[in-house]
Amino acid sequence: MEVDKKEEIASESSEEQVVNPWEVSAKDGGKIDYDKLIDQFGCQRLDESLIDRVERLTSRQPHVFLRRGVFFAHRDFDLVLDAYERGDKFYLYTGRGPSSEALHLGHLIPFMFTKYLQEAFKVPLVIQLTDDEKCMWKNLSVEESQRLARENAKDIIACGFDVTKTFIFSDFDYVGGAFYKNMVKVAKCVTLNKAMGIFGFSGEDHIGKLSFPPVQAVPSFPSSFPHLFPGKDKLRCLIPCAIDQDPYFRMTRDVAPRLGYSKPALIESSFFPALQGENGKMSASDPNSAIYVTDTAKDIKNKINRYAFSGGQDSIEKHREIGANLEVDIPVKYLSFFLEDDAELEHIKKEYGEGRMLTGEVKKRLTEVLTGMVERHRMARAAVTDEMVDAFMAVRPLPNMFE
Amino acid sequence: MEVDKKEEIASESSEEQVVNPWEVSAKDGGKIDYDKLIDQFGCQRLDESLIDRVERLTSRQPHVFLRRGVFFAHRDFDLVLDAYERGDKFYLYTGRGPSSEALHLGHLIPFMFTKYLQEAFKVPLVIQLTDDEKCMWKNLSVEESQRLARENAKDIIACGFDVTKTFIFSDFDYVGGAFYKNMVKVAKCVTLNKAMGIFGFSGEDHIGKLSFPPVQAVPSFPSSFPHLFPGKDKLRCLIPCAIDQDPYFRMTRDVAPRLGYSKPALIESSFFPALQGENGKMSASDPNSAIYVTDTAKDIKNKINRYAFSGGQDSIEKHREIGANLEVDIPVKYLSFFLEDDAELEHIKKEYGEGRMLTGEVKKRLTEVLTGMVERHRMARAAVTDEMVDAFMAVRPLPNMFE
Repeated sequence: MEVDKKEEIASESSEEQVVNPWEVSAKDGGKIDYDKLIDQFGCQRLDESLIDRVERLTSRQPHVFLRRGVFFAHRDFDLVLDAYERGDKFYLYTGRGPSSEALHLGHLIPFMFTKYLQEAFKVPLVIQLTDDEKCMWKNLSVEESQRLARENAKDIIACGFDVTKTFIFSDFDYVGGAFYKNMVKVAKCVTLNKAMGIFGFSGEDHIGKLSFPPVQAVPSFPSSFPHLFPGKDKLRCLIPCAIDQDPYFRMTRDVAPRLGYSKPALIESSFFPALQGENGKMSASDPNSAIYVTDTAKDIKNKINRYAFSGGQDSIEKHREIGANLEVDIPVKYLSFFLEDDAELEHIKKEYGEGRMLTGEVKKRLTEVLTGMVERHRMARAAVTDEMVDAFMAVRPLPNMFE
Repeated sequence: MEVDKKEEIASESSEEQVVNPWEVSAKDGGKIDYDKLIDQFGCQRLDESLIDRVERLTSRQPHVFLRRGVFFAHRDFDLVLDAYERGDKFYLYTGRGPSSEALHLGHLIPFMFTKYLQEAFKVPLVIQLTDDEKCMWKNLSVEESQRLARENAKDIIACGFDVTKTFIFSDFDYVGGAFYKNMVKVAKCVTLNKAMGIFGFSGEDHIGKLSFPPVQAVPSFPSSFPHLFPGKDKLRCLIPCAIDQDPYFRMTRDVAPRLGYSKPALIESSFFPALQGENGKMSASDPNSAIYVTDTAKDIKNKINRYAFSGGQDSIEKHREIGANLEVDIPVKYLSFFLEDDAELEHIKKEYGEGRMLTGEVKKRLTEVLTGMVERHRMARAAVTDEMVDAFMAVRPLPNMFE
């Protein structure tokens, strides 16, 4: 699974927006049109009534990523809630393509949200580390991909997952047995033409790429995890992910009924913007385009002050007069992801938007928020031992996973 | 691995001969031109000097399939013998696609020959049962493919393999770990265009077919079997197979050096003809086109008498005068595969070819030979217990495999 889309973008802006697991680019270098994406992909908008239902069913305030529309689209999430209301649990599936040593804030979003879902709904979770994918797409060695998978697992564990409910696996370790059988079943149902249409592969791509979609598809089926879900072949799967992963699961949902399996449900997020702005690109080759969980307080302060694109006006006078353009302002955007306090966020948006607050003040607050968050992550990660990684990755039953 | 090519042929005779793992058809419905195949594939003819070397190195008479040119082509078999002469052993790799309950005589050929090689060279052997392939190509269920794999394993074991030197595996059981890592490494090196060129896949084929060639490739590399060959990454592999499997191993040999692995060597057989003649087709849908190991003595006698294409003349007078056409005579062809005694075979060919022996007499002798062979196979198979299958298929070290 590739949550880290924007790293991959090599091409410059294109005529039409392109969103697939390997490329995210807006039309004419502008912003991604998410409404259009919902139409194009055929998913549904996650509306207020669903969020209200989540609040009611979980008896807790919905996560900030729900309240603020970070997770904005879904497929059959309503059916998952219907079933949950009737007493039928589900399991969560998310993942990461381990292509880099250090994660940036955008990488954490699906994991922060998945942790919330796991806690709120009291459900088990499988996390796929697609080291095989990264070995093939990034031309990493098998060993390096597996090393990165384990390093990334530490960052994921640091997000606070419950080891009694969570199975983290590396494809290189886990592919085989029931999982491989499901891979073959899926592969039988997808023609080459179809895969080329969905994923945009070409004849010059290697056959490993053609072989991979079933690998990402089958964690959607409980029978791929006989140690977790024996006899629970009808258990529903809910996949929190960034919307660029939708093609994999469109394919999966298309195939599922032909195999006698339930279609996985999805809850899909927008993309986390680069410091340079929503039309900018987070790039692994430009460390200043993103804030990493390994950045120091000084790094964070410098990056925000120097690179975070501001919607404030050029002069204080003009700013006081017309206020900041919140639509393009990255500090406000980042705060809307990570500042928990709704009232404070509204206050900042009002004061800043009307010119009473200056860019520097907003950046200062963002620096505090992110420094605290990154520092907490760093401490949590430092506490993750190899034994803990082994525990999360052990192929074992999870006896109390629904409690 | 698909040894049982001719079952698969749907098309009628084509302009040019076609030989690939799924289709074997001669030009204009005639005989396969093996010389042309050697040229086209770029393999070498297995000549007398190599066969003499085998005799010298193994201190035993070469197998009838070598003496009579059933195994007629190779790739680097000379290098394997060079190394063997210097004291470097190798391992054998062969396989079967388990698509049918009962094997016919053609299916036994690679196994009979491989058993000889194992005994003569005192080397270990891995046998791949490609249940995944058959599940995908024949649209069998996973369960049925695995059941057939196990049934076929009994027939293979009945050929007399040494359990202390032989590992039989089902892909559905064994794919994973080191094997899967090698699959990914191979897949990275083969473009879709290349695979389509080698195997003749089209856009309407499913992606499982595109995913499969690495599965058949990687048993060529000792690192795919860490329980057998730990630290023996340079061990050479020799693959006895029918020549229609050459495309898989051309691909494998092309890729091997890029992965730092040795190219596997091959020793390749011609095809076993249908009862109806060398331009006939053995077809799973026509049980009278082949003799099965499950046929009774009566079945065998009937099939030979009724269906075995004869090169004898229409009338006894004409036969006595000009003799049989041995080139097209199936009883003589079959005897050349299965009658051990060189002198007797020469005698029959001379007498029959010169008209002194009649078709009925040759068919009678063939019936005796095949009935004995099939009866011995049936008894050996009946003695194969589930425990023996488990023993051959257990993932375990083979401590004395080179002795």
